[in-house]
Amino acid sequence: MTPEILIKQINFIKEIDKLKYIQRRTKLFNSNRCENDAEHSWHLAMMTLVLAGHSDRPIDILKVLKMVLIHDLVEIDAGDTFIYDAAKNHTNTEEEHLAALRIFDLLPKEQSDEFIAIWEEFEDGNTDEAKFAKAMDRFEPLLQNASNNGGTWREFDVPYHKVYQKKEAIKEGAISIWAYAEALLNESVKTGILKK
Amino acid sequence: MTPEILIKQINFIKEIDKLKYIQRRTKLFNSNRCENDAEHSWHLAMMTLVLAGHSDRPIDILKVLKMVLIHDLVEIDAGDTFIYDAAKNHTNTEEEHLAALRIFDLLPKEQSDEFIAIWEEFEDGNTDEAKFAKAMDRFEPLLQNASNNGGTWREFDVPYHKVYQKKEAIKEGAISIWAYAEALLNESVKTGILKK
Repeated sequence: MTPEILIKQINFIKEIDKLKYIQRRTKLFNSNRCENDAEHSWHLAMMTLVLAGHSDRPIDILKVLKMVLIHDLVEIDAGDTFIYDAAKNHTNTEEEHLAALRIFDLLPKEQSDEFIAIWEEFEDGNTDEAKFAKAMDRFEPLLQNASNNGGTWREFDVPYHKVYQKKEAIKEGAISIWAYAEALLNESVKTGILKK
Repeated sequence: MTPEILIKQINFIKEIDKLKYIQRRTKLFNSNRCENDAEHSWHLAMMTLVLAGHSDRPIDILKVLKMVLIHDLVEIDAGDTFIYDAAKNHTNTEEEHLAALRIFDLLPKEQSDEFIAIWEEFEDGNTDEAKFAKAMDRFEPLLQNASNNGGTWREFDVPYHKVYQKKEAIKEGAISIWAYAEALLNESVKTGILKK
């Protein structure tokens, strides 16, 4: 007899496979192929492991990993919203909350409650862990666009001040990474792949 | 001035993007599209978070996460070897060791040493963390093949006893998950998607 708990967990594990079909706008490094949300989440987890030492405050790395691994699961139902889409607010939509309830509730109650709380903490962005996780989420596409000759900045004609505004979240997580990011933005203006 | 350490870390972060191009034989759930190593690594990390409570011995979850997140990075150089490939030994080839040295040595020395040690611990498979990580690595494609009408078992005509032999590693990590896995293998024989 297989315990009810394991059956629920396996149903969740099967369901979240769908994250691999959710396409982001941003392309892989040096590529024309769009990144999907599962690849993106893996990359943020690796960045967390590698860059955690740059956090300006002590952080619980396991919690940050949980955040970045699950942060986009709601997009299985709600879809990916382009960060520079002016018509639609990127975060905390009602649609995303309904998605969180449906997807995490596949799990046993205790785990579902934990994952929903962690996802909400990430979305709220107030704790040191959420700030560092959000810094990673902003930093990856910056590296990708800078490597991809402007990437989505050029493709969707996004000006410097809009990019800068979004990327400033990096400062809240790690000043040293923000210094690098800011220099990279200025360099991108100089080389013409980002317009002022 | 950007510290040398951050530059090295960013070079590593860019390099490992290549994991997204390494195709596995196994397909996504209910799909004909092959999974890539980054998607696979993300899924194992999620399975670790969800299933860690089934471990038969106490495990350091952060260490298991590190293992599953990095375990396939060597395939950027060495390529993916199909687990049922009789001609080539799957693990611990000289090629994989050279790959580990090249890729992890992009990082600052302290991090490189840590990641190489964790990768070797996973490959050796002797610690409780490595056993649980390996259980996840065997369990995911089992779920995929069973969901995909036999998947690679049928595609490459792999008989029950060979599959059973590889999947037994699950037993070393979690008896309750192995009980489920064994039942799923027997069920697969009954429905004809796995041949005895």
